[in-house]
Amino acid sequence: MSEGHVLIVGSVALDSVKTPSGTAERALGGAATYSSVAASFFSPVKIVGVVGEDFPTEHIAFLESRGIDTEGLQVVPGGKTFHWAGTYEGDMNQANTLATELNVFQDFRPELPESYTSSEFVFLANIDPELQLKVLDQLPNAKLTAMDTMNFWISGKPDALREVMSRVDVVFINDAELRQLTGTVNLTKASAQVHELGPKYVIVKKGEHGAVMYCDQSTCFSAASYPLDEVIDPTGAGDSFAGGFMGYIATTPALTPDNLRKAVVYGSTLASFNVQDFSLNRFKRLTKPEIADRYEEFKRIVFFEEMDS
Amino acid sequence: MSEGHVLIVGSVALDSVKTPSGTAERALGGAATYSSVAASFFSPVKIVGVVGEDFPTEHIAFLESRGIDTEGLQVVPGGKTFHWAGTYEGDMNQANTLATELNVFQDFRPELPESYTSSEFVFLANIDPELQLKVLDQLPNAKLTAMDTMNFWISGKPDALREVMSRVDVVFINDAELRQLTGTVNLTKASAQVHELGPKYVIVKKGEHGAVMYCDQSTCFSAASYPLDEVIDPTGAGDSFAGGFMGYIATTPALTPDNLRKAVVYGSTLASFNVQDFSLNRFKRLTKPEIADRYEEFKRIVFFEEMDS
Repeated sequence: MSEGHVLIVGSVALDSVKTPSGTAERALGGAATYSSVAASFFSPVKIVGVVGEDFPTEHIAFLESRGIDTEGLQVVPGGKTFHWAGTYEGDMNQANTLATELNVFQDFRPELPESYTSSEFVFLANIDPELQLKVLDQLPNAKLTAMDTMNFWISGKPDALREVMSRVDVVFINDAELRQLTGTVNLTKASAQVHELGPKYVIVKKGEHGAVMYCDQSTCFSAASYPLDEVIDPTGAGDSFAGGFMGYIATTPALTPDNLRKAVVYGSTLASFNVQDFSLNRFKRLTKPEIADRYEEFKRIVFFEEMDS
Repeated sequence: MSEGHVLIVGSVALDSVKTPSGTAERALGGAATYSSVAASFFSPVKIVGVVGEDFPTEHIAFLESRGIDTEGLQVVPGGKTFHWAGTYEGDMNQANTLATELNVFQDFRPELPESYTSSEFVFLANIDPELQLKVLDQLPNAKLTAMDTMNFWISGKPDALREVMSRVDVVFINDAELRQLTGTVNLTKASAQVHELGPKYVIVKKGEHGAVMYCDQSTCFSAASYPLDEVIDPTGAGDSFAGGFMGYIATTPALTPDNLRKAVVYGSTLASFNVQDFSLNRFKRLTKPEIADRYEEFKRIVFFEEMDS
């Protein structure tokens, strides 16, 4: 295992979520939070984000207990933390947003502490693509950069978004966003269109249908989802996926296709745990042996023998 | 390879189909047709169906050229063949039916020729579940029975349908039908509910998202779909899947989990070829080496290494 750490930039939030299984009120959330904690099961993490004075100190203590460097987590005196409220129904693939209060996140300008600028593994979680570009400018030593986004930026800042995509190595995107971005229904063809923008890898997150990685003019890896007979709260699944991916890849000596495939499976593993409870509650009690067992389960459910010779 | 053949009962049709790629007019179609031809790449097939006098003799010649026994294919003098017309748009997962003319299929009563009744591998393609039950009554030697269905029977004859499911070994069903049948959105939970009706294996066909097999109280296998950047005509994909599955499993010495997994992959393989052209046109030029190559591709795209020790 190398000493690489993962730098993660994005939202830290307090979420109110309602699903068929129950509710969570102003619980710990945010893309940078989910991805940082997921990554922390594999690698040290440095987080960049902003919260208000209302942000419970116990949450910061939790992040630090996971080995996450919070020097880059600004606390705005008198400010209020980003708050999202939403519900999930039916197939739980799509959240219905009830409220988005940006609060201190509205004026978020990610400033990297000096100790962060040598980072080699960088995940730009869903934020304004213009800010994602400014972060990239501060990271001359990056060895693997990755980004995520959302429908809001696809429709609102498509040009800046495409510029970010042209500058990163990995684009994480879900199937609905991929179709929105490209105007193409066929996911293989749509992935190829994003790949042409420049990233080496386009990783399409399909929720209950797994994930697909596109590289070198073709789909190079298709990962199953872990079969769960109950999803408690899908919030943060995609961020947990990206975090698991980044955390694992930062431990590998080289960005080989085999290591990238394993990173996708670790991402799927972390996402599958995350949806088994509200907020980051499942991660709070998650253990390395559980991760190892589930990785093996992923291997077991997709295994089939060679052809008869 | 054993000498098992596959008995397939279902519709033989002339389809008019329009997709973004083009149109086919009164082309060879029908669930029994697609599944029989798919199965014929692995095993001898005996088909049971009905057509009218208008059914082109070249289609019967094609079936026979594939080693399909057509003794059970009734030709009704003066009758007209079942005709379906539909279009596909958008994500191509759902057909819009323009016309369904049952014609001779309306009075279809599957009668098995004496030479068919010793069949060990039986696929009941989508027909009236009461007819499926009558076919099962005629097959005392069946070693593996499988069935498919559609939304029309799920809403119209749910009790008969559940009785068929309780009597077969394998239920093929697509994700939308599974949710309709069970009223359950979560596919793992819904599969468990069908499994409780009695079948040993519930195989959920998810189109572009692959297929999942449920057995022994859990998801025992998850198969990727083959990544295609263009689907010409999705008609018959599910039937081709079932046919490939049945054709392969009939060649195996035992119904082991490993053989069932391979059968699912062969089913996925045949389905992936079928959608690459209208009607059965791709099957007409499909070769065994192409099937072998694609099976290997399926293996390649889902492969990932063991965990680091």
